[in-house]
Amino acid sequence: MAKEKKQPRPKAETPKGFRDYFGAEVTERADMLAKIAEVYRAHGFEALETSAIETVEALGKFLPDVDRPNAGVFAWQEEDDGKWLALRYDMTAPLARVAAQYRNDLPTPYRRFTMGPVWRNEKPGPGRFRQFYQCDADTVGAPSVAADAEICGMLSDALEAVGIPRGDYVVRVNNRKVLNGVMEVAGVLDPADPSKFEEERGIVLRAIDKFDKFGEEGVRLLMGAGRLDESGDFTKGAGLSEAQADTVMGFMEAKRDDNAATVARLRELVTGSALGAEGVDELEQIASLLDAQGYGPDRIVIDPSVVRGLGYYTGPVFEAELTFEITDEKGRPRQFGSVAGGGRYDDLVKRFTGQVVPATGVSIGVDRLLAALRAKGRIGGTAQGPVVVTVMDRDRMADYMALASTLRTAGIRAEVYLGNPKNFGNQLKYADKRESPVAIIQGSDEAQRGVVQIKDLILGAKIAKDATVEEWKSQPAQFEVPTGEMVAKVQEILARYGAE
Amino acid sequence: MAKEKKQPRPKAETPKGFRDYFGAEVTERADMLAKIAEVYRAHGFEALETSAIETVEALGKFLPDVDRPNAGVFAWQEEDDGKWLALRYDMTAPLARVAAQYRNDLPTPYRRFTMGPVWRNEKPGPGRFRQFYQCDADTVGAPSVAADAEICGMLSDALEAVGIPRGDYVVRVNNRKVLNGVMEVAGVLDPADPSKFEEERGIVLRAIDKFDKFGEEGVRLLMGAGRLDESGDFTKGAGLSEAQADTVMGFMEAKRDDNAATVARLRELVTGSALGAEGVDELEQIASLLDAQGYGPDRIVIDPSVVRGLGYYTGPVFEAELTFEITDEKGRPRQFGSVAGGGRYDDLVKRFTGQVVPATGVSIGVDRLLAALRAKGRIGGTAQGPVVVTVMDRDRMADYMALASTLRTAGIRAEVYLGNPKNFGNQLKYADKRESPVAIIQGSDEAQRGVVQIKDLILGAKIAKDATVEEWKSQPAQFEVPTGEMVAKVQEILARYGAE
Repeated sequence: MAKEKKQPRPKAETPKGFRDYFGAEVTERADMLAKIAEVYRAHGFEALETSAIETVEALGKFLPDVDRPNAGVFAWQEEDDGKWLALRYDMTAPLARVAAQYRNDLPTPYRRFTMGPVWRNEKPGPGRFRQFYQCDADTVGAPSVAADAEICGMLSDALEAVGIPRGDYVVRVNNRKVLNGVMEVAGVLDPADPSKFEEERGIVLRAIDKFDKFGEEGVRLLMGAGRLDESGDFTKGAGLSEAQADTVMGFMEAKRDDNAATVARLRELVTGSALGAEGVDELEQIASLLDAQGYGPDRIVIDPSVVRGLGYYTGPVFEAELTFEITDEKGRPRQFGSVAGGGRYDDLVKRFTGQVVPATGVSIGVDRLLAALRAKGRIGGTAQGPVVVTVMDRDRMADYMALASTLRTAGIRAEVYLGNPKNFGNQLKYADKRESPVAIIQGSDEAQRGVVQIKDLILGAKIAKDATVEEWKSQPAQFEVPTGEMVAKVQEILARYGAE
Repeated sequence: MAKEKKQPRPKAETPKGFRDYFGAEVTERADMLAKIAEVYRAHGFEALETSAIETVEALGKFLPDVDRPNAGVFAWQEEDDGKWLALRYDMTAPLARVAAQYRNDLPTPYRRFTMGPVWRNEKPGPGRFRQFYQCDADTVGAPSVAADAEICGMLSDALEAVGIPRGDYVVRVNNRKVLNGVMEVAGVLDPADPSKFEEERGIVLRAIDKFDKFGEEGVRLLMGAGRLDESGDFTKGAGLSEAQADTVMGFMEAKRDDNAATVARLRELVTGSALGAEGVDELEQIASLLDAQGYGPDRIVIDPSVVRGLGYYTGPVFEAELTFEITDEKGRPRQFGSVAGGGRYDDLVKRFTGQVVPATGVSIGVDRLLAALRAKGRIGGTAQGPVVVTVMDRDRMADYMALASTLRTAGIRAEVYLGNPKNFGNQLKYADKRESPVAIIQGSDEAQRGVVQIKDLILGAKIAKDATVEEWKSQPAQFEVPTGEMVAKVQEILARYGAE
């Protein structure tokens, strides 16, 4: 028999480097972002949602010497006009485009927040995906450090709003101008010719950003002759003398017990540098603006060890760190670490209009913060499934749907089993897969007597695991109530397990 | 002087066919979707968020005879393995992929909802964009019409949850099996050879889907010899005889005053067709299941005129229509019309696994429903901007930020003006652009006396427009209060304008 020739079946798989999010993964993130949005809106920030697609030109990813602009973005060519389009790789490039495009309509300053996926055409790795969420807030067109202070205070509020208690986080603030002042004092920055020593300063910046990883010794090697790592790879050093390195390290260690003392120490360190002094003044202003609003050093501190890796910051930089301990994959306790960061940058709109527009902003690491909330037990509780109304009698579907409807009216998640009801065991297996806390059972006998059986599935599972035969027989996990008392009884059980 | 050669500046523009969403456009949609999600979750539906990108193969858009699969999707080729990837064009194709890929892990039936953007590589038109939101709920693996009834009831709940009052909407339910039964009776469907008359049935289906547009006469022309429109274009007809057309039209007009009468009429019409009888039974069951939960004919009705254009429906189909009147662009009153639709389809997972899996679902037109809420005045009110604390004295920024902070603590959106404060008029213009209801003003004199000036900007604008000189002079729109009373006074003004 000749078989009809068929197209091969497509493979059902998520494309490489992407993932699917199910149930609580989606709703927990949405809830967290909604709380952050509320804080941002309260501060006068307005939502912005640009399309996922930008012209490659606007993204700044166009490489004139290659046919296909693919440096890290997903890009393709338009059919009609041959223009290259691409998925956005961050939220800053679209903001730059919007700030330039609508500059006559938007208020100045323009405060905006945005939340959504971005895409990177990179090699995926463990925990590294090619699509992930970003959550940014930026103020465009405000030159004053009051804008930076506002972002720091707002970040602090946002962390508390999502459930990170005060004391479990700290927002650290520093200023690139102070670092540059220190570089000037150390002789690796010449205000008259900023391009001089640029490479050296880059190495120093990257070195001190890795203080946590390499320790003081490693950082000093990188500032000096260079560093040979365990694998035998050599990283070129900045070639600073020991005295120069001492000056820079002095900056890293300038943090004192309170902001005033830190400021005083920094002022000493930048003596002779006008830029450095300006930076210290700004830090002092930020601290005083925040103090006046009640953001004390228990929440926001000046910390010269924060430098942020990115080259484009021009003034204040900040980082939110979670200070509670978690256990790492090797069972060792460690601090949770950074969940957000940002700073001031001034080149945002210039690419489009030629005009320098000052901007400052913060980006929250959405996945990191969700992981932190999970580590703190703030999200990811049990008993999130719905109550399942089982089907004993196929003809009485309307009654079962009415029971589920009654539960929902009382604010309880509830559904009727809609598979083949023949095998009751399958219905309970289904309820198990749904993580249901409770099953409702009503055969025709119970219906006639106006009662329902309520099965506490969490207790049931516990008994099945631990109980003696006597306990098992007494079956406290399943009991009968008049139908009119169903809602109250179910609510009682849900309250016991902290379910929604 | 030789100018340094520069790269041309990129153009700041949204790519063609895309748009940016600002402020309330974003938050109102998010709020609406959050309310819908809550209803869906209450019914036991779980959130699903797939990545925006799928393999072209999984989307079913791969055309083997063209180099570039571009039939309506944005697609590109992977660097390493040459695979074609594309942005999803709807939410059903990714659901099919997920249902196949995770079939051993997902509960059966699997109820899921999803909300997010989809992309179409089509020619954009007025109001037609290449990226837009979809909001879908589907039940996969439930053969019973109880699943269809559930979706209809849930859709009704969702509409009420977002603010469409009962009486302003109706969910109309029909069944493709009944239509096919009618076709069988009319002699354009042969159960022994379903492929016969396929083209004719397609024409009939499309014709009756356009009843609203063409009226009975136009539909009859399309069922018969064909229709010549005003522009002179001829649409081929199905070639039905008048008697055959009568039978089909009888179906269209079978709606009676109550569901029972409609069902009785339909039963007459499909006499002799087993499939038709099955379809009528299903409609009867759906109506009775919904009745039992209190969804009476004021909310959900059997309406044979609903056919839904898509060819792939196999059983119940439904449509939510808003019945209140709006004024069209020509000033004529018309009903708002359809905002959601769906039905049962059974080919979902088969493409991947070869197994038929029954599925039913609904899709809400996100932009249409938002437009409806705007038309009803449910969203888009005035006075949504924040209170603006103006800056009279540059050195007292900390005090202004503290005032804003005090307002926020009381739940009032508030921000400090962060632009150049020199020109006070600019600050008020800024507040105007921000749609601020209130401005707070405190010079050093007021600060010393422990008071603030509160300016009611909405009343101020009204006075500026209408007031006599005397009214203007009395300036009731601006007054002084002790700083401790600022919050209460601002709340009073906001309450007056229905602001947040």
